[in-house]
Amino acid sequence: MSSFYSPNSIQSFIPPQRTLMGPGPSDISPQVLQALSRPTIGHLDPLFIGMMDELKQLLKYAFQTENEFTIAVSAPGSAGMETCFVNLIEPGEKVVVCRNGVFGERMRENVVRCGGEAIIVDDEWGAPVSVEKVEQALKANPDAVAVAFVHAETSTGALSDAEAISQVARQYDALSIVDAVTSLGGVPLLVDEWQLDAVYSGSQKCLSCVPGLSPVTLSKKAVDKIQKRETPVQSWFLDQSLVLGYWSGEGKRSYHHTAPVNSLYALHESLVALKNEGLEQAWARHQSMHNKLKVGLEKLGFSFVVSEGSRLPQLNAIYIPEGTDEAKVRGDLLEQYNLEIGAGLGSLAGKAWRIGLMGYGARNENVSLCLRALEEVMN
Amino acid sequence: MSSFYSPNSIQSFIPPQRTLMGPGPSDISPQVLQALSRPTIGHLDPLFIGMMDELKQLLKYAFQTENEFTIAVSAPGSAGMETCFVNLIEPGEKVVVCRNGVFGERMRENVVRCGGEAIIVDDEWGAPVSVEKVEQALKANPDAVAVAFVHAETSTGALSDAEAISQVARQYDALSIVDAVTSLGGVPLLVDEWQLDAVYSGSQKCLSCVPGLSPVTLSKKAVDKIQKRETPVQSWFLDQSLVLGYWSGEGKRSYHHTAPVNSLYALHESLVALKNEGLEQAWARHQSMHNKLKVGLEKLGFSFVVSEGSRLPQLNAIYIPEGTDEAKVRGDLLEQYNLEIGAGLGSLAGKAWRIGLMGYGARNENVSLCLRALEEVMN
Repeated sequence: MSSFYSPNSIQSFIPPQRTLMGPGPSDISPQVLQALSRPTIGHLDPLFIGMMDELKQLLKYAFQTENEFTIAVSAPGSAGMETCFVNLIEPGEKVVVCRNGVFGERMRENVVRCGGEAIIVDDEWGAPVSVEKVEQALKANPDAVAVAFVHAETSTGALSDAEAISQVARQYDALSIVDAVTSLGGVPLLVDEWQLDAVYSGSQKCLSCVPGLSPVTLSKKAVDKIQKRETPVQSWFLDQSLVLGYWSGEGKRSYHHTAPVNSLYALHESLVALKNEGLEQAWARHQSMHNKLKVGLEKLGFSFVVSEGSRLPQLNAIYIPEGTDEAKVRGDLLEQYNLEIGAGLGSLAGKAWRIGLMGYGARNENVSLCLRALEEVMN
Repeated sequence: MSSFYSPNSIQSFIPPQRTLMGPGPSDISPQVLQALSRPTIGHLDPLFIGMMDELKQLLKYAFQTENEFTIAVSAPGSAGMETCFVNLIEPGEKVVVCRNGVFGERMRENVVRCGGEAIIVDDEWGAPVSVEKVEQALKANPDAVAVAFVHAETSTGALSDAEAISQVARQYDALSIVDAVTSLGGVPLLVDEWQLDAVYSGSQKCLSCVPGLSPVTLSKKAVDKIQKRETPVQSWFLDQSLVLGYWSGEGKRSYHHTAPVNSLYALHESLVALKNEGLEQAWARHQSMHNKLKVGLEKLGFSFVVSEGSRLPQLNAIYIPEGTDEAKVRGDLLEQYNLEIGAGLGSLAGKAWRIGLMGYGARNENVSLCLRALEEVMN
């Protein structure tokens, strides 16, 4: 064996206790962190399989769906996005992709990498997706198989009308593919009532679980399309016809990959907390914390990127006053207050900050700290 | 909002304390579990980025490499496998795939899904990969761009000669793609000395970290091949030209996906433990625990699937005596002793058990418990 440099100086990493008010990961409750570190058991252990069955029930409640296909992909939200596209889209198929921020563009990239053709519907960053433009795009492309859009754009804080977009898609016999990474648990998302077909989310936003998992739910229509594919799914890891055998409650579980056991404990715990609080109460809490933050920010002279009607309570993008050294302000908040807020992303980089009020992070004390610290640092 | 069934009866999940002696996940030390539940900080926090730089150093030590491209993929080992194939293989390219167990077959599936052509080298389950057969396959297919093989087959417990296979591959100007999921940290794996090109592993085997991460290292030659691709990588999530921007130590980090922050704390801690013990000491511990287990199992009348010369110390596949109700024995061990051993996989299902001695699980007390419990349950 060659004598390789042994990194002797490296010790255990002890992170500080931050208050996380960026675009995610969000603050995590002590209960969820405790669940995370419970003893690891085997991923085929009968007790673990029972836990996964409960997790499916809890996810169905969070998504408000009875979809049999409701699972957590063993990877972050961007893998949840890719799961929906690689399974649903076959080479040559057209997809209407709505782009009003970073994640709409990422959807386009996914469509193209699947060999699909993306029909772009562009809206301004900060504006919601225009339902009319979607209808025009479908009228011009009646052979489109799906409409893909972001319910809650994490890069801008804009909320789009998922129910209306999905309704238009259905009129043209197209499936809806919905990015609910930032919406799930923070604002109403009614998968069955709105008849959404493929919806993915992330663990680290309004569910306040550790990052690394992506809840996904597929309607019967979406599952049917997967089962009728003529070409194989290009990804083995994300092929849901294989994964379903692992998550299925009936009969013998077939081994697909090793589930991220401890992260799933944490997701289970965060969903139990959501169920105990109640979905509607959680949505109301996000709204009420947003109202307090909004009043305080406006008093400090800040203005919002998104106009009031389509503003997300859980992701507040505000313009940075001219002449501000924005990186220094964020650095001061982090170093002097252990408070993280988010930088702007994409076309809002350097122009806006993003203040998250997500899940366990949407608490009165967080809002007060944020307002006071911003006031102190900016003066 | 429709009034959906709220799963009121579901409470926090409290797993028991098991002794994990299956094929993984392996026993996790209290230190690693503690690291896992440290406060979550942002994935772009300067302190987190510093932690990731240390993680790269620690992974380089574990892999015995100076490869600049040494990271942890934010998903389980099967995604690490897919990462290597989707980045390295372009449609139409030939890959020699060695198949002597479940994971060689999975490699073949990956090649096909990338549009590549798999040239199969079959060896019996339980036997190591035949270097001669690899050479014959390369002689017959001198245009093959890579040779893919499993260093330590988790489904059988066979160790193949990675150094010799890689040497043959080089003679034919083919890259080596190596599954080191079960070997990393358990037996010698010298990435640079053996000139391996693309090596992936898993967090939940001999590193004794939680499942859900896949360490990957790529040689300069492998990175060159990726940079010269003519077709885009079919996966956005696993496209390493995008991921590298996030893991790169130089300049500004670009956002790709949200890293699984807490799981990376745990991987860091498990690698610090490996570094503190020393790689060679860890290998010797696995060997010595295997020796004790072997003597005990043979006294109980068990015989090994793999012959002595290519037997992995960390994964012991033993034949189940005829007439044994194998599921009942595993069930009794789990329920009465909180001890997990693994079932057979693929063609060994129902015929063999797999006893893992991996990482923190390779301890004297575990071996004693396993031998005594097996003796009691079998009588």
